[in-house]
Amino acid sequence: MNSNRLEAFSDGVLAIIITIMVLELKVPHGTEISDLVPLLPVFLSYVLSFIYVGIYWNNHHHMMHAVHKVNGGILWANLHLLFWLSLIPFVTGWIGENNFAELPMALYGGVLLMAAIAYFILQRSILAVQGKDSILNKALGKDIKGKASPIIYTVAIIGSFLNPWIAGVLYILVALMWLIPDKRIEIIFKEEA
Amino acid sequence: MNSNRLEAFSDGVLAIIITIMVLELKVPHGTEISDLVPLLPVFLSYVLSFIYVGIYWNNHHHMMHAVHKVNGGILWANLHLLFWLSLIPFVTGWIGENNFAELPMALYGGVLLMAAIAYFILQRSILAVQGKDSILNKALGKDIKGKASPIIYTVAIIGSFLNPWIAGVLYILVALMWLIPDKRIEIIFKEEA
Amino acid sequence: MNSNRLEAFSDGVLAIIITIMVLELKVPHGTEISDLVPLLPVFLSYVLSFIYVGIYWNNHHHMMHAVHKVNGGILWANLHLLFWLSLIPFVTGWIGENNFAELPMALYGGVLLMAAIAYFILQRSILAVQGKDSILNKALGKDIKGKASPIIYTVAIIGSFLNPWIAGVLYILVALMWLIPDKRIEIIFKEEA
Amino acid sequence: MNSNRLEAFSDGVLAIIITIMVLELKVPHGTEISDLVPLLPVFLSYVLSFIYVGIYWNNHHHMMHAVHKVNGGILWANLHLLFWLSLIPFVTGWIGENNFAELPMALYGGVLLMAAIAYFILQRSILAVQGKDSILNKALGKDIKGKASPIIYTVAIIGSFLNPWIAGVLYILVALMWLIPDKRIEIIFKEEA
Repeated sequence: MNSNRLEAFSDGVLAIIITIMVLELKVPHGTEISDLVPLLPVFLSYVLSFIYVGIYWNNHHHMMHAVHKVNGGILWANLHLLFWLSLIPFVTGWIGENNFAELPMALYGGVLLMAAIAYFILQRSILAVQGKDSILNKALGKDIKGKASPIIYTVAIIGSFLNPWIAGVLYILVALMWLIPDKRIEIIFKEEA
Repeated sequence: MNSNRLEAFSDGVLAIIITIMVLELKVPHGTEISDLVPLLPVFLSYVLSFIYVGIYWNNHHHMMHAVHKVNGGILWANLHLLFWLSLIPFVTGWIGENNFAELPMALYGGVLLMAAIAYFILQRSILAVQGKDSILNKALGKDIKGKASPIIYTVAIIGSFLNPWIAGVLYILVALMWLIPDKRIEIIFKEEA
Repeated sequence: MNSNRLEAFSDGVLAIIITIMVLELKVPHGTEISDLVPLLPVFLSYVLSFIYVGIYWNNHHHMMHAVHKVNGGILWANLHLLFWLSLIPFVTGWIGENNFAELPMALYGGVLLMAAIAYFILQRSILAVQGKDSILNKALGKDIKGKASPIIYTVAIIGSFLNPWIAGVLYILVALMWLIPDKRIEIIFKEEA
Repeated sequence: MNSNRLEAFSDGVLAIIITIMVLELKVPHGTEISDLVPLLPVFLSYVLSFIYVGIYWNNHHHMMHAVHKVNGGILWANLHLLFWLSLIPFVTGWIGENNFAELPMALYGGVLLMAAIAYFILQRSILAVQGKDSILNKALGKDIKGKASPIIYTVAIIGSFLNPWIAGVLYILVALMWLIPDKRIEIIFKEEA
């Protein structure tokens, strides 16, 4: 079974997720700078989540590039990932409208943690089909970023109850860590070619 | 006429349906756990409908895999299916906001029933073109799941007026029945290859 | 320049148009049949507009099937068509929420009329590239449906101020006329093949 | 790495951006012409932004036509462009609901300016991969339109505080300048072929 349609469907869902988040930026009624000020936390949370969805799209793009055949298990592992990502607009709106309060920040991390776990499961399902000698497996190597992220999210969730800024800084940190594109797969591909 | 664009359009509609349902999860104004509690039924109804749309996407993906040419009849049978699926966000919102009350639960089943019938009609339109010896026809076999679902939905609709939980349990049951991916087509395909 | 991306973009826009219309079906707060009654005109207007967008998607699909190369003029003629189609959710909401009143019904026809003209312009731009001997030109023949529709819309717009039902009946009539898929192109294609 | 999925994802995001803008056209409760009058500025701002997003899609389409391989840098430069474009519905809503007031008009120009810069960065990232002898580089030539637009936007932003109509006229001017499709790339392509 071909992976094209899985990619197209995932692209569609990710494109909608990334775009409906902007609907939380409600058009203000006034026309002064002071009318924009309350939107600042909403805007910042939008930027952060835009980057996260962008990272997922980017990594998904890289990973699927190494996949040609998909089975039922992979299809559902992918839908499971999309489910958690689809909750990002909700938690983004919640942290943005409440100035990054404790519980919203913790739940934001909870959704990121579940998405990371779902991504890990998807990766496992693909590796199960492709085997240990596959390009993807070589490219992942020790997958340090993939393993570090859930740990940092967990720390951030706990930390958010001490001070929400702990969580905030950690979420930005993980984003920056991933923003550097996954050179590993690109490099291995070149070596193979 | 090629089936690619029909698949792309269906993917687009399904991706939007699955994503706009999350808009029913309205961002709460408070930041306490108690502010999330009223969202629980909305969340649960979202999970159920996400799985249903996922099942339809999955089965649609499998079925279309066996289709290369489409005619006007298939295009409209497909749009008819998308019409009923497009009502899922509405009934999902209704059951979620009303704690799974009788009439909303019955109407939820009504939409599922119409979607199941529309899927059956689409399947018939495809088989009419492909003939009895087609891969799809072999793969479907007796199509027990396809025939059982509308019956269970009908029981659930009637049952919902006795006790909405009867409907709830039946909807979950049908979802679980379909969650197991349609191995039949995959197996037949392998035998052909 | 290849027509694939134009088709993909148009599919995306049409998929979103068809799906956001359902957002006008606002989830009612009550759980009785009487809570659904006020939604009936909204639902009926949704059905009508769903069919219209479906017809446009269907005809667009057929027409583009005969197109392999696009130029700047075709790209803009296509965006012009999408612009008018994007206003369908607005006029659909307006007729649905106002029980098919005079002015809303007239404006609904106005948008359909502009979309029909835009479709005609798009068709002309494609024929200008393909020439008079093209498959598309043969397939269109005298294009009676394409020429009759704008005339009927104009009559409907004027008629809506006498009695909105005149417009309603005419809109349904045009939809039925187009629902019969454009066999002409399919037949000519078969003859060529 | 193939450019297909980048195009598909961009198409998805642009299709959603162009379509959610129409949601700002809120369905009026009355049925008189006078109920439509307050929507006129919202409608005009929608037309302008629709054309701008159309221009971006068109130019993106042309540019990507010359690109076959993408790397991580191009992926992120593209996401950066989509980020600024995703803010167009917000600023469109703001100018439309406030009769083109000073600050909204300036911010509208600010988003257009950032999108233009992002487009320029994307173009640079592609040229960095393709080299100076590439078709794209030849096609761009001196790229006068690409260099003039940010300057005009800057003038418009400053001008909007003197009189918002200065900004309005300049935004329309830039749109008209780009509406003429980028013949350069089409011509060079023909020469190469």
